[in-house]
Amino acid sequence: MPLPSLSREACAELDAADPLAPRRADFLLPEGVIYLDGNSLGALPRAVPGRVAHLIEQEWGRGLVRSWNDAGWWDQPRALAAMLAPLVGAASDEVVVGDGTSANLFKTLVAALRLNPDRRVVVAEAGAFPTDLYIAQGVAELFDGVRLRLVGPGGEELAEALRPGDVGAVLLGHVDYRTGELRDMAAETRLAHDHGALAVWDLCHSVGALPVELSACGADFAVGCTYKYLNAGPGAPAFTYVAARHHARARQPLTGWHGHARPFDFTGDYEPAAGASCFLSGSQPLVAAAAVEAALQVWRGVDLALVRAKSLALTDLFLELTRPAGLEVVTPLEHARRGSQVSLRHPDGYAMVQALIERGIIGDFRAPDILRFGFTPLYLRHVDVFDAATALVEVVRGGEWRDPRFARRAQVT
Amino acid sequence: MPLPSLSREACAELDAADPLAPRRADFLLPEGVIYLDGNSLGALPRAVPGRVAHLIEQEWGRGLVRSWNDAGWWDQPRALAAMLAPLVGAASDEVVVGDGTSANLFKTLVAALRLNPDRRVVVAEAGAFPTDLYIAQGVAELFDGVRLRLVGPGGEELAEALRPGDVGAVLLGHVDYRTGELRDMAAETRLAHDHGALAVWDLCHSVGALPVELSACGADFAVGCTYKYLNAGPGAPAFTYVAARHHARARQPLTGWHGHARPFDFTGDYEPAAGASCFLSGSQPLVAAAAVEAALQVWRGVDLALVRAKSLALTDLFLELTRPAGLEVVTPLEHARRGSQVSLRHPDGYAMVQALIERGIIGDFRAPDILRFGFTPLYLRHVDVFDAATALVEVVRGGEWRDPRFARRAQVT
Repeated sequence: MPLPSLSREACAELDAADPLAPRRADFLLPEGVIYLDGNSLGALPRAVPGRVAHLIEQEWGRGLVRSWNDAGWWDQPRALAAMLAPLVGAASDEVVVGDGTSANLFKTLVAALRLNPDRRVVVAEAGAFPTDLYIAQGVAELFDGVRLRLVGPGGEELAEALRPGDVGAVLLGHVDYRTGELRDMAAETRLAHDHGALAVWDLCHSVGALPVELSACGADFAVGCTYKYLNAGPGAPAFTYVAARHHARARQPLTGWHGHARPFDFTGDYEPAAGASCFLSGSQPLVAAAAVEAALQVWRGVDLALVRAKSLALTDLFLELTRPAGLEVVTPLEHARRGSQVSLRHPDGYAMVQALIERGIIGDFRAPDILRFGFTPLYLRHVDVFDAATALVEVVRGGEWRDPRFARRAQVT
Repeated sequence: MPLPSLSREACAELDAADPLAPRRADFLLPEGVIYLDGNSLGALPRAVPGRVAHLIEQEWGRGLVRSWNDAGWWDQPRALAAMLAPLVGAASDEVVVGDGTSANLFKTLVAALRLNPDRRVVVAEAGAFPTDLYIAQGVAELFDGVRLRLVGPGGEELAEALRPGDVGAVLLGHVDYRTGELRDMAAETRLAHDHGALAVWDLCHSVGALPVELSACGADFAVGCTYKYLNAGPGAPAFTYVAARHHARARQPLTGWHGHARPFDFTGDYEPAAGASCFLSGSQPLVAAAAVEAALQVWRGVDLALVRAKSLALTDLFLELTRPAGLEVVTPLEHARRGSQVSLRHPDGYAMVQALIERGIIGDFRAPDILRFGFTPLYLRHVDVFDAATALVEVVRGGEWRDPRFARRAQVT
């Protein structure tokens, strides 16, 4: 695509013409902050405080236990799934919202291996977000003979890992949390299937940032969080996708009563509910789920093609404007291989990120040397990208990051 | 104990002398309601709306991702554990708050079987809350050779089930959700240990209702919810107890990054955190956890011996005052075997409960024929018990429940 003119005025003109610009008003953004870390924790949607207060004060406080029926609490995981399903290219009954990403990874990996009982290898990415690897290790340690095989990015290593024909499940991140690289879900799912393996996708860094087409790509299972590009709040309930063709046979092991076909019969024997619902276990934290509901409402009528186009425009702009800083670019330049983040590399990246935060520009750092900037098209403007990029160039070239107060310390998230 | 005088005035005098009476002001109770279902969903603590709003608007909205460090989000599961530990007779590092009861049951049962690898039988109660049975079934189906053995209430059946010497883990509910029967945790844990089994306790219906002494009783593992007598909100994060003597060896299978010893090293290999923390998996829903925090603060300085004494006084009073209704009493009359609820039996119990709800007296019904009334000493008065019992007698004897609009329909919780 042609680069936009690089003046701040030109950026302001792009914002004026941006069809997604009105969505920014759906968020409560603090003054004086440019937020480039929505890929870690999304910003606060304006409707969340009121929706959560309503749940607490009216549904819980006044309705009390009656709200399980009267306020639709029991079906909330499915109601949220119906809102989320279009964002991942799924039917409503293929998705359920509940539990955390790690627990859902465990459930889906075990379910995939059970569908493929003669194959005992799980393929995962060496560079995956650690919890994916830890959960896969946890699964491997649980079952005799199950073992992990790690691969690097791209389809070639994956093909190699699949070749022996012993792989039951492939666990892949749609967008790499560190580099921002986007995998080809359709091609790699096909590759897995061609070798008799099932594909489990981790959508944490793609859902809400770009169109995800689980069904069209033939994915078998997927999990994802709702607190990054979906803006549902810290640690908000995650989701699970189970392709319709597996509903009859897929079985997850945390068989709690919320996944039962007839939970209020209080029978002694577990009988799985239809659809993805049987991937639920117990009660979901409804105070947090109310925030998910308000956050997902922001997406009504949002065209994901526009989100993707703006995401690429913003990351292109940031890459272009930060070129004078001279940092190594880690994120693929090719659009088809890029998520909605830009990762740059420098041995002193930690201090540089801290110096930017001091200026109110919030990105984050990933050890050992990655400066990571996320771009959320719903609330980020072109002028924000201009200002952030300009600040980064100043921080790096002016040596501001050498200030001792920016020296490395223990870090969270 | 001697029965109190049965007039409403006498009840009001008991309230005036009640050392726990001031705690009622810590709750926001709806007008015109007598709430006898705090054993299903506890009432709303007054401090919750403000605490949750602060988390949302300040910590999330303004602090954004920085709050993982600055607002102590990362350590919230342990901070909540430190508040909760005294309520279950545990050290802070033996407890962690997170995930749901069902998931925590799965983790602790698998961990118990791993500690006892030569024994493949899990003993559970035939009358347990269904999710306990379903999860135990899920564990049994996951591992070759693991099987369930069901027992009835009381120690005799348990002793019989343990006799073959093949039991790895015993899963027992401290208080039966249906009958309100309290098990003897010390004696039955000892019985399990005498037969080489580990004891996993479900505290959902006892924590916050009576003193729980996990450590003194020698319990191995325990789980419990925070949304019944602890009043932390619908589906609020649950907790897990792991006895200190098992910390070095206990391993749960959902090995996510929040249970890692050094999560921010982002290493590829899982290494369990010290203490009960390694029973965490992923991020917790912090919007819901803020409600847990505010709810647990109500317990500061509350003497659990007073809670227990008031609980028994209220249930005694209710049993005495409802005698004219002529319903079969299911809950043990003996104090040592009674939790904080009264369960009565009648084939038309459903309609009777509905007729009471119509009068603003909220109890619940458990199929096929149990009228269930929970007594939460922190916010319930003796006069409430008087009014509720009087209403029940009127409803039953006056035939009010025969109104067709109270006829049975599908029910939740």
